[in-house]
Amino acid sequence: MLIHRVERLYKQMESAGMDALVVNPGSSLSYLTGLDFHLMERPTLAFFAPGKKPILVIPKLEVVKLTGMEYEVDAILYDEDPTLWQAAFDGAASNLKLSGKRIGAEPLALRLLELSYIQKACDPQVIDATALIASLRAQKDAAELEKIQIAANIAQTALNTTLPLVKIGMTEREVAAELVIQLLRAGCPPNLPFGPIVSSGPNSANPHASPSDRKIQSGDLLLFDWGARHDGYISDLTRTFAIGDVDPEFIKIHSVVHQANAAGRAAGKPGAPALAVDKAARQVIESAGYGKYFTHRTGHGIGLDVHEDPYMRGDNDQPLVPGNCYTVEPGIYLAGKNGVRIEDDMYITEEGALSFSDMPREIRVIA
Amino acid sequence: MLIHRVERLYKQMESAGMDALVVNPGSSLSYLTGLDFHLMERPTLAFFAPGKKPILVIPKLEVVKLTGMEYEVDAILYDEDPTLWQAAFDGAASNLKLSGKRIGAEPLALRLLELSYIQKACDPQVIDATALIASLRAQKDAAELEKIQIAANIAQTALNTTLPLVKIGMTEREVAAELVIQLLRAGCPPNLPFGPIVSSGPNSANPHASPSDRKIQSGDLLLFDWGARHDGYISDLTRTFAIGDVDPEFIKIHSVVHQANAAGRAAGKPGAPALAVDKAARQVIESAGYGKYFTHRTGHGIGLDVHEDPYMRGDNDQPLVPGNCYTVEPGIYLAGKNGVRIEDDMYITEEGALSFSDMPREIRVIA
Repeated sequence: MLIHRVERLYKQMESAGMDALVVNPGSSLSYLTGLDFHLMERPTLAFFAPGKKPILVIPKLEVVKLTGMEYEVDAILYDEDPTLWQAAFDGAASNLKLSGKRIGAEPLALRLLELSYIQKACDPQVIDATALIASLRAQKDAAELEKIQIAANIAQTALNTTLPLVKIGMTEREVAAELVIQLLRAGCPPNLPFGPIVSSGPNSANPHASPSDRKIQSGDLLLFDWGARHDGYISDLTRTFAIGDVDPEFIKIHSVVHQANAAGRAAGKPGAPALAVDKAARQVIESAGYGKYFTHRTGHGIGLDVHEDPYMRGDNDQPLVPGNCYTVEPGIYLAGKNGVRIEDDMYITEEGALSFSDMPREIRVIA
Repeated sequence: MLIHRVERLYKQMESAGMDALVVNPGSSLSYLTGLDFHLMERPTLAFFAPGKKPILVIPKLEVVKLTGMEYEVDAILYDEDPTLWQAAFDGAASNLKLSGKRIGAEPLALRLLELSYIQKACDPQVIDATALIASLRAQKDAAELEKIQIAANIAQTALNTTLPLVKIGMTEREVAAELVIQLLRAGCPPNLPFGPIVSSGPNSANPHASPSDRKIQSGDLLLFDWGARHDGYISDLTRTFAIGDVDPEFIKIHSVVHQANAAGRAAGKPGAPALAVDKAARQVIESAGYGKYFTHRTGHGIGLDVHEDPYMRGDNDQPLVPGNCYTVEPGIYLAGKNGVRIEDDMYITEEGALSFSDMPREIRVIA
């Protein structure tokens, strides 16, 4: 029930002394309204003020979307002529009595476009609402968990149908195209959460590699970092495979990363700080002597965005709570040689942490 | 040569009395630097000031991207700790002596995040640089035209391999998934310019339809609005087909839209106002008595973005110039019945306008 999200929002806003919140098109707007608006040249903005009905300022041509809303809002519609748009924002600010008030916004989402209309409408004190919204969004309800589960299932199905197609001599790009096709066949919509990483040999030692024209050869590790979307929610997984005969060193680092992944997955539970997940995974890799080759945080929250709260970083003492969803993705990257990453999607329950993803994590020779 | 773009930019900025321009990740940054940065939680910003070397403020982990730059820039790199980021922006502003100066920005792209860093760094007068950048980007050079041509070729190849797969009883969603697969097979990267529209029967009368679970049936018109990407540049095409025996009225509106498309394509030439293209297409539809069923502008510019300058609107008297690239996409939408749109991608030459797209426009029965 989306109205419960708004109720929780209003409660938090009152504690934070926030008179209103403005949200432009993006994942937070989808979260609070259930609607998808494009970020475009026409300013679109939702105003939330505790104790009042939300107001949406939108282009008239988008009004049909409001028929899908779960709760009541006031809509202020504007015509195509841009000289009329300021009046729409003035109307919203005046209805909610926002002149000079404290208005929350997300600096990562709100643009100068929308900001200018708000400033002219009511000259508010703009305050950072990032943490407030992130904390709401980070506690997924049962329906959200189910969507992420389906997104993980789609991703796993797609990789399982791709693996038999991988042959020595194919390029990373060709394998990536096949994987995307299998994602679509498995039910993922065309707006993938991100373009899959398929990286082989030395390229697998670059955590941010893009699929290249390098041909897959015997002795390579082959890394897939891929995900799917379902009803807005995403999955984000990584598995690393062997091609032909690989050097024992690479089998060893695969085993270390596998153990680190298991330790990271086991460390999540209600009340544990996010950093405990990072520490548990990192400890395994450091003990094996590969600490300096694990060059990134252990994970990040997932949901409507691919990266969101909570972050599994060594400096994040934020306590985990039931409904938190995040990745555990330790890696070891031996520059110029090979790299390994094994990534799962997790959620916090009342008792501990469970995994959305269950594909085998052991090293497998796939070509 | 990207440096020529910067030189043209500096010339225009001097005429406009703009002391600097700030550009965050997006199509304008790609246009000016040739680099792709993600819009993310870490602020990334390019500063352009006439007569000076451009400065890029970026996260240290992105520095490897700069090796791909075509011209020299100064880079100010920052570490992961957010408390150090303001100093990076202070450094850029101080190097370029921007305190209190007039700084251009794109309100549709710049976020409150980057704006806050700039304001703290030099408290500038922020001015709207939208038109200035749009006018540069709207004049494509030969290399850009070739990329759009390839994007159009990919799109056409993909539809040609999709059409034989369309059968009565398939859903719009199934046909759209096939089309996306064929786009990928034809060489389009996974980040499609937009999810294709496949709309049948009454759904084709909604210009903004999304593919639904409606099954295609005899008597339908079937509309495809799809495009591809190549090296950043996009194509955006529409064709409308017949399924089985269709009512003569729908064949008639198809013929009218076909003539309107031809008139719109013929109307473009250097010096002609953009509105002339709209008028030429609209005139055909109005003369046939369907004026009120053509509910949108005739076209929009294309390039790195799917919608950019110049817009083919009845109120746009901006003169077309060689290198302008835009769509011509008249339509007739009979609510509750069927709709037709025929869209081509055009470019202005010294003599007139040529089409990137050449798929047959006549009505064809495809199932």
